[in-house]
Amino acid sequence: MAGGKDLGPVFAHIDEHAGEIVEDLCELCRQPSISTTHVGIEEMAVLVRERLERTGFETSRFETTHNPIIYGELKGASPKTLLYYNHYDVQPPDPVDAWETPPFEPTVREGHLYARGATDNKGNIMSRLAAIQAFLAVRGELPCTVKYMIEGNEEMSSPVIGPFVEGHKELLAADGCIWEDTFREDAPVLSLGNKGMLYIELRCRTANVDFHSSHAQIYENAAWRLVWALSTMKDRDENILVEGFYDDVVPLSDKEKEYLMGITPYDGEARKKKFELRRFLLDLPDEKLPERHLANPTLNIAGIFGGYTGKGRKTIVTGEAAVKIDCRLVVNQEPEKIMACIRRHLDKHGFEDIEVVSLGHGSFPAKSDPESPLVKACTAASKRVYGKNPEINPFGSGSTPTWSVIQYMGIPLCSTGVGYITARTHSANENIKIEHLIEGAKYMAAILEEFGSS
Amino acid sequence: MAGGKDLGPVFAHIDEHAGEIVEDLCELCRQPSISTTHVGIEEMAVLVRERLERTGFETSRFETTHNPIIYGELKGASPKTLLYYNHYDVQPPDPVDAWETPPFEPTVREGHLYARGATDNKGNIMSRLAAIQAFLAVRGELPCTVKYMIEGNEEMSSPVIGPFVEGHKELLAADGCIWEDTFREDAPVLSLGNKGMLYIELRCRTANVDFHSSHAQIYENAAWRLVWALSTMKDRDENILVEGFYDDVVPLSDKEKEYLMGITPYDGEARKKKFELRRFLLDLPDEKLPERHLANPTLNIAGIFGGYTGKGRKTIVTGEAAVKIDCRLVVNQEPEKIMACIRRHLDKHGFEDIEVVSLGHGSFPAKSDPESPLVKACTAASKRVYGKNPEINPFGSGSTPTWSVIQYMGIPLCSTGVGYITARTHSANENIKIEHLIEGAKYMAAILEEFGSS
Repeated sequence: MAGGKDLGPVFAHIDEHAGEIVEDLCELCRQPSISTTHVGIEEMAVLVRERLERTGFETSRFETTHNPIIYGELKGASPKTLLYYNHYDVQPPDPVDAWETPPFEPTVREGHLYARGATDNKGNIMSRLAAIQAFLAVRGELPCTVKYMIEGNEEMSSPVIGPFVEGHKELLAADGCIWEDTFREDAPVLSLGNKGMLYIELRCRTANVDFHSSHAQIYENAAWRLVWALSTMKDRDENILVEGFYDDVVPLSDKEKEYLMGITPYDGEARKKKFELRRFLLDLPDEKLPERHLANPTLNIAGIFGGYTGKGRKTIVTGEAAVKIDCRLVVNQEPEKIMACIRRHLDKHGFEDIEVVSLGHGSFPAKSDPESPLVKACTAASKRVYGKNPEINPFGSGSTPTWSVIQYMGIPLCSTGVGYITARTHSANENIKIEHLIEGAKYMAAILEEFGSS
Repeated sequence: MAGGKDLGPVFAHIDEHAGEIVEDLCELCRQPSISTTHVGIEEMAVLVRERLERTGFETSRFETTHNPIIYGELKGASPKTLLYYNHYDVQPPDPVDAWETPPFEPTVREGHLYARGATDNKGNIMSRLAAIQAFLAVRGELPCTVKYMIEGNEEMSSPVIGPFVEGHKELLAADGCIWEDTFREDAPVLSLGNKGMLYIELRCRTANVDFHSSHAQIYENAAWRLVWALSTMKDRDENILVEGFYDDVVPLSDKEKEYLMGITPYDGEARKKKFELRRFLLDLPDEKLPERHLANPTLNIAGIFGGYTGKGRKTIVTGEAAVKIDCRLVVNQEPEKIMACIRRHLDKHGFEDIEVVSLGHGSFPAKSDPESPLVKACTAASKRVYGKNPEINPFGSGSTPTWSVIQYMGIPLCSTGVGYITARTHSANENIKIEHLIEGAKYMAAILEEFGSS
């Protein structure tokens, strides 16, 4: 089934050097690199570049409007080139008290390495570097050329990746791109895209004061107006009623449907209990959840507020009210176009007075070809290392900037890596199971081999 | 037109003693009596009782669950008895910096006395006592018996008046009641009742966490549910759709319609400008505003909140949301019955999960007979003193506890007194125009005379 050469010696090398791989990861994790609070960023950028150099990459450093991007390139045997993306910044460790051992003092307990960044995303960097080191040690060369960009603002929504990719298409030119990570339970996930994002606030103001509520019969209430406006935008069956909202949505292909059917059904009962759910949206049964979740755009209320929001009673006519709405977009919806649809919709329904304010730049949805050689290479690699097919999510559920690579470079992209569900990424006691780290290095090695020979 | 004896000597006495009346009011205003923060309450209760005693009343003091009620009785010439209601507590003086002279150091400037309580409600107490003093000095007796209850929790929504009146029907028995105050521009207002009040919170909770908004397609959003529920409760034409809500509303009588027509139209253009209004509710023209305002019940949103309400973006599925609703009720709506209607309405529309929580006790609407001898006496008194008819509001717009007197004692009630629109009650620089205080004392004297001889 698999292409490429025997990987036995490469895997053996990884196993033999497991201790060093863990120690190398500890070194990365010892250096704080919190982008939100700008702690340790410069030291980390230097360390990452030095690590790429040491592995054999020719490196450059790109200053940006935010934190620097470290770039490396290492030639391989085949004419194929694979682009890697990872990030060296981490989430803040708060609440620090919840950690059993300090977040920046990596500690091994019961087969797991505990530290902030152990999985997200330094563990992923390390699995890739370990694979590369093994090839260089065993064969003296990589199966294909690797280009590596490692950024420092992923935990702040990656404001610099779009412009960087757009401005460096030639430098980054490649035959495929492996994005950050994605793993689930007992097999890798290949996530082939991302949702776009439009984030707006609808603001209604009916007066410059909150009138005493004994005047509710003569003054307009901003909260009521907002309620009425919203009720025209989505019905109780979750149909988005904004005219034009669905116009650009590309129907699912047969292959996408097939992949969606193959996604492990969510464990509805367990989630209902854990999160005290009344039910899932529209009473969806477990087997329908993945498709609903992954393939559809949203018009979500992230917050609503107006009038008196404290404890107890205050008797006022709400003079100002607002709602925060985030729309997760699917291919080929465009954030600005959707915002214009919402404006037109409000006007058409008599809500010209309700303001539509963009909160930050929108981002685009993107999906990569599910039948590309890259997907085939990753699938073959998964079978080699884990003995099973990966789970393929043709869409991606978050709003990562994978779209920049897909859109500007037009190359296939998979997000895959290590990151078991118990890794507690973003939480206290983030960790990586050492066994998963080592398996992950082999998986990355297998992808290089399969892709290089494809 | 007017009944009763010549009031010339009584009015002359009031004029001659204007300086003392102002000084007596200053003494009342010098004593802070803030019920909200419980400052000076005991001292004020003692002072008010002492003042009633000095005027000639036989007094008692009633302890309550909150501040004491001071009660006085003074026999008059006719068999008629008039019950007075006022309050000795005041609003907090905040923001103190906004006062030109300190709130509890009464100061006369350009014909106005400035102090917290100058109008609301110590000025009203003083106008009544001045009238009584004048009768006693000139005639040696009052035209009718006066019973006087003065409470200390009006600025905290009068939690003790209902139970007190219900428990002391015999003590308080009277032929009519003059409530707190009401004045407008250049003539008194007779306010003949009050609206009732139901204050509830509707609470929706779809999960015990706010999920990441990439899950908006599979988890229910509490804010959306609340929006949909609210949109079934009132339509954009301001029709309240809760079944049974209007069932007990008593249609307007011809007399009530006549009085409503007589109310000065509101100055819509001025209000639109001052409060930056888009329009009045339903684009109501000025002449329709008073009836709409005074005769109709409300279902008002006083506050709405859920999810992320801070600045900027946060991408979550709102797991909990709530709305504060106050309903101003008209005769014969009952707060508990309306709350039950809302519960049934939500159940019927599939919102069984939305909780309906009462925030504090409801209160009842009430209206007093617009053709009672008391209204006639007040009307005649207005003509005697101001040379014009009073404006008659057959309903009252606020939710004061006048209902307790109307409901438990079944006697006619008027709220009337002094309190020009520039008095800035509840605000910084509260004041009373001294001319209005003296006129108000005469108006009160004329009411006693007209009512005693009716």
